Amino acid sequence: MLIELPRQTEVFGSVKIHELQRILKLDSGGFENPMAKDIPFDELKDVLKRFAVIIPTKDEKIHLLDGVLRAIPFDCTVIVVSNSKRKEYDLYKMEKEAIASLHERVQQEIIVIHQKDPELGLAFYDAGYDYLLSKNGLVRNGKAEGMMIGMLLAKSVGKDFIGFADADNYIPGSVREYVLDYAAGFCMSESPYSMVRLHWRYKPKVVEDKLYFKKWGRVSEATNRYLNLLLSTNSGFETGVVVTGNAGEHAMTTKLADIMCYSPGYSVEPYHFVYLFDVFGHKAEKIAYPNAEAAGVEIFQIETLNPHIHEEKGGKHIKNMLLGSLCTIYNSKLCNDYVRSKVLEELGDILDPWEKPPEVTVMPPIGGIDADRFMNVLERKSETLERYEETRR
Amino acid sequence: MLIELPRQTEVFGSVKIHELQRILKLDSGGFENPMAKDIPFDELKDVLKRFAVIIPTKDEKIHLLDGVLRAIPFDCTVIVVSNSKRKEYDLYKMEKEAIASLHERVQQEIIVIHQKDPELGLAFYDAGYDYLLSKNGLVRNGKAEGMMIGMLLAKSVGKDFIGFADADNYIPGSVREYVLDYAAGFCMSESPYSMVRLHWRYKPKVVEDKLYFKKWGRVSEATNRYLNLLLSTNSGFETGVVVTGNAGEHAMTTKLADIMCYSPGYSVEPYHFVYLFDVFGHKAEKIAYPNAEAAGVEIFQIETLNPHIHEEKGGKHIKNMLLGSLCTIYNSKLCNDYVRSKVLEELGDILDPWEKPPEVTVMPPIGGIDADRFMNVLERKSETLERYEETRR
Repeated sequence: MLIELPRQTEVFGSVKIHELQRILKLDSGGFENPMAKDIPFDELKDVLKRFAVIIPTKDEKIHLLDGVLRAIPFDCTVIVVSNSKRKEYDLYKMEKEAIASLHERVQQEIIVIHQKDPELGLAFYDAGYDYLLSKNGLVRNGKAEGMMIGMLLAKSVGKDFIGFADADNYIPGSVREYVLDYAAGFCMSESPYSMVRLHWRYKPKVVEDKLYFKKWGRVSEATNRYLNLLLSTNSGFETGVVVTGNAGEHAMTTKLADIMCYSPGYSVEPYHFVYLFDVFGHKAEKIAYPNAEAAGVEIFQIETLNPHIHEEKGGKHIKNMLLGSLCTIYNSKLCNDYVRSKVLEELGDILDPWEKPPEVTVMPPIGGIDADRFMNVLERKSETLERYEETRR
Repeated sequence: MLIELPRQTEVFGSVKIHELQRILKLDSGGFENPMAKDIPFDELKDVLKRFAVIIPTKDEKIHLLDGVLRAIPFDCTVIVVSNSKRKEYDLYKMEKEAIASLHERVQQEIIVIHQKDPELGLAFYDAGYDYLLSKNGLVRNGKAEGMMIGMLLAKSVGKDFIGFADADNYIPGSVREYVLDYAAGFCMSESPYSMVRLHWRYKPKVVEDKLYFKKWGRVSEATNRYLNLLLSTNSGFETGVVVTGNAGEHAMTTKLADIMCYSPGYSVEPYHFVYLFDVFGHKAEKIAYPNAEAAGVEIFQIETLNPHIHEEKGGKHIKNMLLGSLCTIYNSKLCNDYVRSKVLEELGDILDPWEKPPEVTVMPPIGGIDADRFMNVLERKSETLERYEETRR
């Protein structure tokens, strides 16, 4: 893979944010290049072998899920966390059948579980981590909750890198690229605490009877603007380095995933930045994570070669997305009155004049959970868990 | 790569047509699999090193061309044959600049030439091959003509495999897959005379405000139906094996390319089949190509994992495409009265009752042209030819 070198990197406390880097070529020739980083396939492969791709899914077309699964590099472990309906007809059963039939031919390691599995609720309860549970003891609905389930399963099979992909992608080749881009980021990283966030080259929309290759959505634009403002007002130097505030496509080292706090709903992705700024961005009285502090946290932002075309569900709650994203910034420890007033201005037609953005729900780090024990509980009792192993070569 | 084995292969004279094979996985684990063929990446790479990808282009958006070039596997040689406009503004110059700038970073071997280069006309004239030339001595307009220029350049740099890709593809990852699928076909082939034709999994169309994942176009459906009818009436056994009659995405061994006749316009792809049926499908009085006859000609049909989304230009002359495709079948030596009457029926609303489908223009094999000499002429005099070499590793 051949990828642009970042010309600029913003350093904020112990957080490094690299400028957007373009994928120049999906493979490469392995020669000296002053303008770009050449990553041999073997290096990518080494990362992929230690990589789990988590696919949270809910009532997606089986066709799309099948295409995505066929595109993900073989060396990764795939973890499907489904919250699909099981009443009327059992869509989860069909998903499992599709996965079983694919696995029979492909033999890639795949783990699949249902978000509403009662044993999953019990396993979290048993681990003393009840932040994901609703009153009936089951894991709540929500993609962020599904992602966290996936992260624990990834840890239980000993993976060092965790990345996310959506099941509603029309272009299998794009999903494949996302995973390779993640791996490229980790190949470039110098810290065991790092994160890769993708920026789609285009996100085509159907406009009248044609495809229009949009680059930025309204929400992303606003999220990035205020994340940059938060950064600028604290460092004293204006910056536009953040361009992936809402990046659903992202990956982390397990070490970083272990010390992150997570936020549910639309705030999950921008909250990554806010959390890292809050914890690592300035001299704190008490250092919470001395190892990460010493090694530094590295964030890579990579522009994909492929466009992103996914299922348009309509009713995308633009207002809720904007509110969910910006409330993370408003509630940051680092947010001053000026940034707060700007955020309130942006939310002018969403909030009433006397309203404030809601508090951010924060789910604490999962690093303390014993993932082996978590998996043991599930393996003994879960009805929905299925593990398809990689055939030994 | 993991690809389905064909369950059935039709043999017609010395032509073997394999049933459609699906790509199960873009990479694979290298284990024994009774249901699928596992092709290790190293084998694909061996083919790619001997492979030229020809991109005929005309007034395409530079953005799209750039994406396609960045996606094509590094080990291939890329040959861009442009027929873009040079008056008003010189689009060809911009294409060359984009290619030069990409090459500077990527260092892949790329050859580019303009279809209307007077020296190109002269080189063909010099080779005694004037079937592509118009009265002014320049190569005619047309994609088929551009493809033939590309084939000669591929031969001149000693490539063993030649494949085609369009420059108007919205999904770089799809183009990448096409080239890998071609390579997979050649890895499976047992004859030095073989051809790989791709069948898109879907070809999405914008229908109202949504994408509709179409599988078959009206023209393809008709072309395949009559190619199969031609085959069935001659073999005496009904078959539906041909599903890639109009496959613009196809590749050939240079050995096969050397002995093929070509037809211009919309008939170029279906004519491949008709030509092979006519020459190799039955006992001829005189064997024209004994080596190919002895080795057999193998045709692979592969279903891509990725959908095909390309620039919709509108004004696709469905009627002309249908006429262009079916006239190859009508004019086949093997076409009997029954098939002819069926073709005429299909063309009922295109042709008047007293009209017959036009004769097929046939351009004879290029195997006799001295490709080195052809390239020498160009290298000495051509103003538009540019060769960007691969940096030695």
